[in-house]
Amino acid sequence: MSELFHEIDNCVTAPQGFRAGTVASGIKSDSTIKDLAILASDVPCNAAGTFTPSSTRAAPVLVCQERLKSGKAQAIVVNSGNANCATGEVGLLNAYRITELAAARLQIENEMVLCSSTGIIGRQLPMEKITAGVNNILLSSDQGNAFSEAILTTDTRPKRIALEFQIDGRSVRLGGVTKGAGMIMPNMATMLCYLTTDATLDQAWLQKELRSAVADSFNMIAIDGDMSTNDTCILFANGLAGNSAINTQHPEAGTFREALRRVTQYLAREIVRDGEGATKLMTVHVHGARDKADAIKAARAITLSPLWQCALAGEDPNWGRIVAALGASGCELEQDRYDILIGDVQVTKQGMAAAYNQQQAHAVMTGKEVIISVDLHLGEGQATAWGCDLTHGYIDENTLYTR
Amino acid sequence: MSELFHEIDNCVTAPQGFRAGTVASGIKSDSTIKDLAILASDVPCNAAGTFTPSSTRAAPVLVCQERLKSGKAQAIVVNSGNANCATGEVGLLNAYRITELAAARLQIENEMVLCSSTGIIGRQLPMEKITAGVNNILLSSDQGNAFSEAILTTDTRPKRIALEFQIDGRSVRLGGVTKGAGMIMPNMATMLCYLTTDATLDQAWLQKELRSAVADSFNMIAIDGDMSTNDTCILFANGLAGNSAINTQHPEAGTFREALRRVTQYLAREIVRDGEGATKLMTVHVHGARDKADAIKAARAITLSPLWQCALAGEDPNWGRIVAALGASGCELEQDRYDILIGDVQVTKQGMAAAYNQQQAHAVMTGKEVIISVDLHLGEGQATAWGCDLTHGYIDENTLYTR
Repeated sequence: MSELFHEIDNCVTAPQGFRAGTVASGIKSDSTIKDLAILASDVPCNAAGTFTPSSTRAAPVLVCQERLKSGKAQAIVVNSGNANCATGEVGLLNAYRITELAAARLQIENEMVLCSSTGIIGRQLPMEKITAGVNNILLSSDQGNAFSEAILTTDTRPKRIALEFQIDGRSVRLGGVTKGAGMIMPNMATMLCYLTTDATLDQAWLQKELRSAVADSFNMIAIDGDMSTNDTCILFANGLAGNSAINTQHPEAGTFREALRRVTQYLAREIVRDGEGATKLMTVHVHGARDKADAIKAARAITLSPLWQCALAGEDPNWGRIVAALGASGCELEQDRYDILIGDVQVTKQGMAAAYNQQQAHAVMTGKEVIISVDLHLGEGQATAWGCDLTHGYIDENTLYTR
Repeated sequence: MSELFHEIDNCVTAPQGFRAGTVASGIKSDSTIKDLAILASDVPCNAAGTFTPSSTRAAPVLVCQERLKSGKAQAIVVNSGNANCATGEVGLLNAYRITELAAARLQIENEMVLCSSTGIIGRQLPMEKITAGVNNILLSSDQGNAFSEAILTTDTRPKRIALEFQIDGRSVRLGGVTKGAGMIMPNMATMLCYLTTDATLDQAWLQKELRSAVADSFNMIAIDGDMSTNDTCILFANGLAGNSAINTQHPEAGTFREALRRVTQYLAREIVRDGEGATKLMTVHVHGARDKADAIKAARAITLSPLWQCALAGEDPNWGRIVAALGASGCELEQDRYDILIGDVQVTKQGMAAAYNQQQAHAVMTGKEVIISVDLHLGEGQATAWGCDLTHGYIDENTLYTR
């Protein structure tokens, strides 16, 4: 991070006026594990969210989408261990009931509370445990890290960050936490991400910028190509930093945009690095595409190819698999123009084998991070996607039967 | 097979007037393995093909597409061990050169010869070995089975069939061979399928029926979702059975259509059954979709979900993963209407957990073939797709480094 942005502790409770609290409510079978958490602002926030486009999206996603139409929110209650998905009308009523419980606990308006769930699909929430749990949660401004842990399912580690920077000469903070994308254990799906800031943000601007940041971060990562029923990313801006509201005209809008880009891309890469069974991170840069949409298609196709993911695991600079993934991606391509590099080794030149040293190509595959660069030589479109390798660890985590 | 269709031996050389021959030309490193083969008709055929839509399709695919514009062909020469893909202008000239060699050997017109290649991407064909090989091939009408073996790459077994049936009171035969789809070993991609018949078929009708049969068979199978650069399916009809030309008006058009459907679906299922690391075949029936396109989306999404493929391997009736795959498929769906059955056990009713016995649900997952039925209760659209489980075998076959 450059000197404009300082990394600080406490992630989502680093910005002024945000508090969090967690409790082991017994939703998960191990009753010592924190599985219920609240994140709240002292004052109402401008807020926006992006959600899974799945047509089987879970009840809490429907609640968030409904409530965020107002552009306002003040708190979110999150449980792990149960996705509250494929639970019908009862599940939807339960999701609303949870927001009521949290609103009563926080003494704020019910309509200002959102909710998320992550875990098993197809089971009703244990509402008695959740009611008792919400009533036992104590919130404080140093519990951001505890919050980042309570939202995990089978992630191996929390993923969190906070940055401090200047807007209008005032200190402004942006914090974020996320949990694993990809379907990590039987039915334990879902990418959840919560972002908090004490900056004052124009609501329309916030919504547009969040969508754009998610497009370039969480929407560009892939572990196994499965899309969750619960994916959610929400940004809360409570304005307590006291800057003038940031919108398109604000001279320092670019500073906040850059902070948001750094935080979301950091968290997205952390998810991939912690992907099920992952031992290597791959970064795929595509440039020279006809347009950005084509660059996105090409970059994502490479990260999503199980064959290339296996080659990565095997440290095999098997560029024919990249060619096959590119060809199948639907991006415009000319067969005698595209170049492919693995690390700094050019393996493909004008659509054919380049004169490269096989041992050098293998050597660049042995690192923990492998960079693939594709130049389609057709236009100005570019995109970056991140993915991981496909290993026995993935199979183990997803086939072991949980009777 | 019902009594209308009798299964007979010799696959693609079962129909009158077809001959085949094979040779170990040394394209593969083990020079005792047959890797070059010719299939030819004694007389010119009406012919049609369907090919990969990949934008990095291989040179032999381009040759076939060009030559089949005439609707006529008489022979095809096929090599395994090298895909002749990402090989530029040289690769394209080599593909044409191979057809010239075969045409000279067969003493037929060059324009009547097609070619296919399957194997490693990115290397030029060893033309001296191929030239010698073609000149050594001897063709005969009992070599259909040898042909089915010479086109294999890492398939564990040949896939072939021939049916005999009656048209216009005459005996008609339809034979077929195929080789593995999915990317089975480093760069060993490609589904190839060749169909032969001695029936007289109208060219336009043949083309339409082939496209339709492929849509309901090879286009509905999935192993890992990777699309090959070389996928090819060609039907040759030489007319030697002497029936009146079959077109839409022919009273027995339906008989030939049914034979073609049986042969292509049999071969497609054989490919999945032999998928890399596969231990189980899954058949996914979707009905009640808004339309056929939606049913196809939904059925394919389920066969392509790595998570559900892992659940299948683990014999875990984890229907939440089917819900997630359906939701992500893009098919129209109402959350309180769809039903899911695994085998004969209804696990999901109106979008929620059905009251089912967990042990029964597990029991139906233990078979070699598992049938998933989804009813969306929205319309008349239906489709069937086939897939396999995802196991350690897949990872082994695709990560082992081949230096």
